[in-house]
Amino acid sequence: MTYTPTDYLPYDFANRRHIGPSPAEMEDMFAVLGVRDLDQLIDETVPASIRQAEPLDFGKPMSERGLLWHMEQVAKKNKVLTSLIGQGYHGTVTPPAIQRNILENPAWYTAYTPYQPEISQGRLEALLNYQTMVSDLTGLEIANASLLDEGTACAEAMTMAQRVAKTKATAFFVDENCHPQNIAVIQTRAAPLGIEVIVGSPDDMDAGKVFGAIFQYPGTHGHLRDFADEIASLHGAGAIGVVSADPLALCLLKEPGAMGADIAVGTTQRFGVPMGYGGPHAAYMATKQQYARSMPGRLVGVSIDSHGNRAYRLSLQTREQHIRREKATSNVCTAQALLAVMASFYAVFHGPEGLRAIAQRIHRKTVRLARGLEAAGFKVEPKAFFDTITVDVGLLQQGVLLSAVREGVNLRRVGDTRVGITLDELTRPATIEAVWRAFGIIMKDDDFAQEYRLPDALVRKSPYLTHPIFHMNRAETEMMRYMRRLADRDLALDRAMIPLGSCTMKLNSAAEMMPVTWPEFGQLHPFVPADQAAGYRELIDDLSAKLCEITGYAAISMQPNSGAQGEYAGLLTIAAYHRAEGQGHRNICLIPTSAHGTNPASAQMVGWKVVPVKSTATGDIDLDDFRAKAEQHADNLAGCMITYPSTHGVFEETVKDVCRITHDHGGQVYIDGANMNAMVGLARPGDLGGDVSHLNLHKTFCIPHGGGGPGMGPIGVKPHLVPHLPGHPATGGTEGPVSSAPFGSPSLLPISWAYCLMMGGEGLTQATRVAILNANYIARRLEGAFDVLYRGKQGRVAHECIIDTRPFAESAGVTVDDIAKRLIDNGFHAPTMSWPVAGTLMIEPTESETKAELDRFCTAMLAIRAEIRDIEEGRIDRDNNPLKNAPHTMEDLVKDWDRPYSREQGCFPPGAFRVDKYWPPVNRVDNVWGDRNLTCTCPPMEAYADAAE
Amino acid sequence: MTYTPTDYLPYDFANRRHIGPSPAEMEDMFAVLGVRDLDQLIDETVPASIRQAEPLDFGKPMSERGLLWHMEQVAKKNKVLTSLIGQGYHGTVTPPAIQRNILENPAWYTAYTPYQPEISQGRLEALLNYQTMVSDLTGLEIANASLLDEGTACAEAMTMAQRVAKTKATAFFVDENCHPQNIAVIQTRAAPLGIEVIVGSPDDMDAGKVFGAIFQYPGTHGHLRDFADEIASLHGAGAIGVVSADPLALCLLKEPGAMGADIAVGTTQRFGVPMGYGGPHAAYMATKQQYARSMPGRLVGVSIDSHGNRAYRLSLQTREQHIRREKATSNVCTAQALLAVMASFYAVFHGPEGLRAIAQRIHRKTVRLARGLEAAGFKVEPKAFFDTITVDVGLLQQGVLLSAVREGVNLRRVGDTRVGITLDELTRPATIEAVWRAFGIIMKDDDFAQEYRLPDALVRKSPYLTHPIFHMNRAETEMMRYMRRLADRDLALDRAMIPLGSCTMKLNSAAEMMPVTWPEFGQLHPFVPADQAAGYRELIDDLSAKLCEITGYAAISMQPNSGAQGEYAGLLTIAAYHRAEGQGHRNICLIPTSAHGTNPASAQMVGWKVVPVKSTATGDIDLDDFRAKAEQHADNLAGCMITYPSTHGVFEETVKDVCRITHDHGGQVYIDGANMNAMVGLARPGDLGGDVSHLNLHKTFCIPHGGGGPGMGPIGVKPHLVPHLPGHPATGGTEGPVSSAPFGSPSLLPISWAYCLMMGGEGLTQATRVAILNANYIARRLEGAFDVLYRGKQGRVAHECIIDTRPFAESAGVTVDDIAKRLIDNGFHAPTMSWPVAGTLMIEPTESETKAELDRFCTAMLAIRAEIRDIEEGRIDRDNNPLKNAPHTMEDLVKDWDRPYSREQGCFPPGAFRVDKYWPPVNRVDNVWGDRNLTCTCPPMEAYADAAE
Repeated sequence: MTYTPTDYLPYDFANRRHIGPSPAEMEDMFAVLGVRDLDQLIDETVPASIRQAEPLDFGKPMSERGLLWHMEQVAKKNKVLTSLIGQGYHGTVTPPAIQRNILENPAWYTAYTPYQPEISQGRLEALLNYQTMVSDLTGLEIANASLLDEGTACAEAMTMAQRVAKTKATAFFVDENCHPQNIAVIQTRAAPLGIEVIVGSPDDMDAGKVFGAIFQYPGTHGHLRDFADEIASLHGAGAIGVVSADPLALCLLKEPGAMGADIAVGTTQRFGVPMGYGGPHAAYMATKQQYARSMPGRLVGVSIDSHGNRAYRLSLQTREQHIRREKATSNVCTAQALLAVMASFYAVFHGPEGLRAIAQRIHRKTVRLARGLEAAGFKVEPKAFFDTITVDVGLLQQGVLLSAVREGVNLRRVGDTRVGITLDELTRPATIEAVWRAFGIIMKDDDFAQEYRLPDALVRKSPYLTHPIFHMNRAETEMMRYMRRLADRDLALDRAMIPLGSCTMKLNSAAEMMPVTWPEFGQLHPFVPADQAAGYRELIDDLSAKLCEITGYAAISMQPNSGAQGEYAGLLTIAAYHRAEGQGHRNICLIPTSAHGTNPASAQMVGWKVVPVKSTATGDIDLDDFRAKAEQHADNLAGCMITYPSTHGVFEETVKDVCRITHDHGGQVYIDGANMNAMVGLARPGDLGGDVSHLNLHKTFCIPHGGGGPGMGPIGVKPHLVPHLPGHPATGGTEGPVSSAPFGSPSLLPISWAYCLMMGGEGLTQATRVAILNANYIARRLEGAFDVLYRGKQGRVAHECIIDTRPFAESAGVTVDDIAKRLIDNGFHAPTMSWPVAGTLMIEPTESETKAELDRFCTAMLAIRAEIRDIEEGRIDRDNNPLKNAPHTMEDLVKDWDRPYSREQGCFPPGAFRVDKYWPPVNRVDNVWGDRNLTCTCPPMEAYADAAE
Repeated sequence: MTYTPTDYLPYDFANRRHIGPSPAEMEDMFAVLGVRDLDQLIDETVPASIRQAEPLDFGKPMSERGLLWHMEQVAKKNKVLTSLIGQGYHGTVTPPAIQRNILENPAWYTAYTPYQPEISQGRLEALLNYQTMVSDLTGLEIANASLLDEGTACAEAMTMAQRVAKTKATAFFVDENCHPQNIAVIQTRAAPLGIEVIVGSPDDMDAGKVFGAIFQYPGTHGHLRDFADEIASLHGAGAIGVVSADPLALCLLKEPGAMGADIAVGTTQRFGVPMGYGGPHAAYMATKQQYARSMPGRLVGVSIDSHGNRAYRLSLQTREQHIRREKATSNVCTAQALLAVMASFYAVFHGPEGLRAIAQRIHRKTVRLARGLEAAGFKVEPKAFFDTITVDVGLLQQGVLLSAVREGVNLRRVGDTRVGITLDELTRPATIEAVWRAFGIIMKDDDFAQEYRLPDALVRKSPYLTHPIFHMNRAETEMMRYMRRLADRDLALDRAMIPLGSCTMKLNSAAEMMPVTWPEFGQLHPFVPADQAAGYRELIDDLSAKLCEITGYAAISMQPNSGAQGEYAGLLTIAAYHRAEGQGHRNICLIPTSAHGTNPASAQMVGWKVVPVKSTATGDIDLDDFRAKAEQHADNLAGCMITYPSTHGVFEETVKDVCRITHDHGGQVYIDGANMNAMVGLARPGDLGGDVSHLNLHKTFCIPHGGGGPGMGPIGVKPHLVPHLPGHPATGGTEGPVSSAPFGSPSLLPISWAYCLMMGGEGLTQATRVAILNANYIARRLEGAFDVLYRGKQGRVAHECIIDTRPFAESAGVTVDDIAKRLIDNGFHAPTMSWPVAGTLMIEPTESETKAELDRFCTAMLAIRAEIRDIEEGRIDRDNNPLKNAPHTMEDLVKDWDRPYSREQGCFPPGAFRVDKYWPPVNRVDNVWGDRNLTCTCPPMEAYADAAE
């Protein structure tokens, strides 16, 4: 007899694991939308003129198990040696408790940026701990919640210095002892801004000629120097002193603040974050209180909620690009939140005495190593050091380096005759013996050196990490519970849909995440010899090829480690092309008013002038205005920056016209890839006429948002731009680098690769189609209750939809904020608020949400609409109603209830789970109070009494 | 200059990660206890006469990183081949989402057995899903929440059959096609109970001579047979039919219930649980409703809470040993909860169509394999099969087996001329081609076979997994959220201390847990050739050596896979020794009345008679009574079972007398190792006079409780007992096996080994000392408020303390249950209730809790005492007060509040966290209702409406 196998494939990751709606649910959704099938919906949504010719073909998709097996084979091609190369990247021990409970825990890694503070108190506390740690270690009053990497942090420090300096000088001094990649990134950043970079010895610095200077501490070759005098002379000239410092060294050494530094930057990678072949890790920036408002990046601060209780939030958001656009302090948008959280927990777990002991141990081991070398007659520099020494070996350089590799150790090539060695937390006696053997010394490391070689004058005298939070979590049991408590305060993807328009909060599957914490991907130094990173190479090449096929571009640069970095790198590439074509004067960039704020901010960073282009009433680019502006600026048109489908969530039919007009006037087209999740497999930016695009791998390609980073923004370019892609001191290229590491944050790439491999071309395309289905389903279900703004010609939205809440301001006194906070009561993160249009909500469900969850969301929204109607029709007070009082907390429940609606109505609106309800830990957070009373370090102990009791 | 390194060692796992109190906290605790230091406290607690002579010396303790590196080296010595050996162990795909969110998630693995249903609704639902799955697949009405392994499940089925059979026959028939280890475990179990085991072909069974029979389905060599006729003939004789069935096969094949079977057993290992070299995995048992009350093991049932809302709980607990002692249905105590939860989520994730597709795929691949072999002329048996075939290769057997190993495949040796092959979920074309090559066949597996070879008459006709819960969680996003919601309903160690006396709920560190999910430990079949398990061998040998040193015994058997199994195996070992000494008649076992219920239940299982021994008023064994009973039964004294320190939490000074008296009268001494956490490094059961002890690795040695299992109960024995330790068909030995696999549940052993390696001898001893410190601290802090029962001569308790709540019954109408439920409001799992003395609470904090957490607990207990005083003194009603109404839920808060105390008082007693409060999802659960209205499968859909909405 024969049997009919079911058509259900248990190993079909794409259709049954990644994509939310089941086939049956989809049928129901088609009925609601009045379409026959998905093909019809897509035909009605995506204009035929922009559809790609050939379907994506990546071969047979892999099962989860097949993927993990394949990934393992590739991982094994990376050789994990002990890298003592230093240069800002160090071996470190990730405490298993932190690895398991943070890095591998969806409650932490699937969270979004904490813009909605009421549902983000846990990660805000962790980031506040981070800021406190940085502030303490650097001896500066205020620190931000992380930057992308040390190189970009240096560059940000430079531009910040220019903003706050009291001199009009246009040069910036860079200590020649800075890490080479830091110098290179500074130079890249400086050039388009017209900043002259002077690299030299601090001894030769002319403070009167610069608006600021940066010094590395310890120096890249290990030197220790007190920069107090240099900084004093800078201050005398109205200039700014920046120190790029290793935070672990600061556990033993005089802090930048004590040297008078205005700004300190650096990386917290060695606080428990694997090197990852270059990233991601969290860079830090700290400064004096007086400069707080000029600091780039996200800043967590303390405020109060509507009941006057303490609450955390992001402070001073008005500095950021989505408000200030090209006038923003920076285009920095993504931070490295997840990695900053890890580093902060590392400090919480070890505490000051633990960090000090780790630093001491590393230092003493370095002394031991040096003594052995010296005893054998080698010349070791410098005399005093922390963890890094340089040995002059003359002609033997190559021999020593190769010999070290044979011993399983990577040393640093310094000049033609020297070798650099930087020890770290992982250094064992066997490591030191291996290094000695590389130098021909056969000796046991028998733990003899108790000696210290820190300069007396630079020994740290001030305490740090004195706050109780750094003293209460030594035991793993307590630590585990502290991490759990913080996680439980937050609402992430592991509990509910996060329908954030433009942010594409889709599934980050467990299988995709698993390889990230494999040592073969985690423990590679970014500057290892290429043959040790063959696995990464294979991964990067194949993923690049797939991304090229998806986008229609010729090559990909993985270097940009955020979306905004991608924009910036893409514009730099265009600028370099123009220069190469003798068109270096072109500096006008057309940007629609609806563009994301990072677009103008990035254009500003490459020295371009932003010319805004109007939108039509339907949300499309106003083609007449575009043409007029292009003609007007034809001589100087550098290019345009557009987003496709538009930030209004519509597939504009005119996109090809826009590109053609730009090209006709000598410009290049930058197509922002933020909305690629609506395009993959259906249309290719390269085909539309784009010359360059960035791809937010943390949106479309499944890298989790990590509570505000990491992200990745690789760029794809047309063939003529390939020669002008970012280079790097470690890998070559004609252009300078935009990031510290050649491939940005490569340890994230297994996630996106895994996604592509398990979805296959067909699966990726289906994901796009279902993303569009889900958005249209929501738009249809909310119709009548809310106005859906912006649709395509046939009435369809793309992968997101915008609903208008402005009418309710007048009719009921209800703001978009009220609706967002009321959604928290319903157990949802709000959609994107007031962007791209003030007073609206932009909803992007992604393909990963089931119909059941979409329905729960629609139930919540419709219930909110009914509550608004109650106000409109006078059934409930305009000022005292569930919307104005949202979100409701357990504290509300336990207190006397004197509201014109019941506890039940207040706390259990129809979208909320009953048993499994999410309770925000605070009531509505007061934003103004927090900015007026800026506090960005841990508040005093009583805040923790609850936890300690 | 020189610096003083801090005395803080960041890599000191023992003192700063595993042990809770910091050095400073300990000083404060000494002051409270009025001792100078820990030495003094220990001297006052542990009698000098029992202290061990030499400190433990395991060399230098490892850091977490050192441990993981070392563990990796050992792991690599295990060779992971593709094992097609079958015999109840199969390759399977653990869905990454389940691995990450269940197996690697402390919210699941650190939970305790769900005896407190209000804080266990999540895992109870998962286990109810498991029972529903088993019930559906087997076609029987009721299933329990897992047994230890298939072999013991078969043995339990045998004894259950004897209990419920209507015949007085004393023989049990065993199908010769049962897996060999199942037959062996049945035989071991049968012998002491006087049951005759008849192994033979079902064709030859004489139903009139037996009280029951067990059949394997599919048979161990692949045969499929409908046992309906045999079972009918058994029923005709008043006997019971048992089928041991592969649940995956049941997705395609006629279910045991449809054959009329009374009981079905089997293993759910292949539902996503790695083989683990033998375990742990969950065995199942299902039966007819009429036999529910005779079924062993834990049974989850549906009941209601005090508001009439649905709530889950453990049903029919009165069947269990702690109530019925030697009259219990079984000594089974630990289940395999965590693994049952995994298997249930596997079914939830795949659903019936997924399981069916997996089963079909395996079957069709087996057909393909068979066709290839047949085409080459090999004789393949049987004609119809599911996943297992047997090939007669004559003299070539050894050659084929070796050739297969060279191809990376383990096949099964069957008799002298045959080879068995069992395919599984992991089988790929490459696997089939490798097997063919082992037979000399060079052929591509080109996916040709669509043919099925299931017997028409045995094709399954009934549906299964029809409940919506098996249909709503296909998308990983939904699945992740479902797992999170269930986890959040429960209170486990990752949120609060679980001060369960006798259960030792200590830290299960992340580093200890990491190796468990490495494939080198997970993917080994228990019957692989020894050279493929060299890593396991090294681990087992070294851990055994350490456990011998800790206990003072000569050898360890790792076979018992629970504490009760350890007791049983230990008593079997003693019985075998007596037989060997010509003392086989000895059958009297002295057991103190205070013993854990598993002690008498285990004694009953080896056919011994239990003679209870009194306790004195101070809780010690009544030495006079003991001596008298020993003398009275001198001729037949088999031995005694005692616990040390006693179940009253006291180091009895007379323990050596008890042992001597026993020995003097020809008996052997079993010292229950439940309380080893009070002894390690301080005293050794072997030195006290014990002949055998079991060690609860899931207590003292850090294996997590997993919400009610897995556990491990290896036994240590004195030299004279070594020859009589459990054997196994796969590894030899003179005695029969007690478990299916030779080493029990070996994939758990890395946890205990890691613990020993990272603690070192000194660290293990310090853990014991601090466990005693923590218990004494609690006892002192509660003094005055509660009477602390049972102390040593100097007024100290051991590692736990018992407080008396009986006086409050009269004074305030408050029961121990009220206090336990009120602790939930305070955010705590209750201590052990009413054991060993009714009306008491036994508190064991373990060494892993910080002083801060101990203080929070004491705050809670003292506040409860104050509430009791309010009742006693008439300030609040005896029937309507926070204790009687505990636990309080959010539903209480949201509803009208008509209680004589405030919401604040009800919900936020002083021990409760404020922001991070744990809310039980249900009010107090009605136990009686649940047993009266027994329902043990998923209730109808409306229960899930909340989740689905």
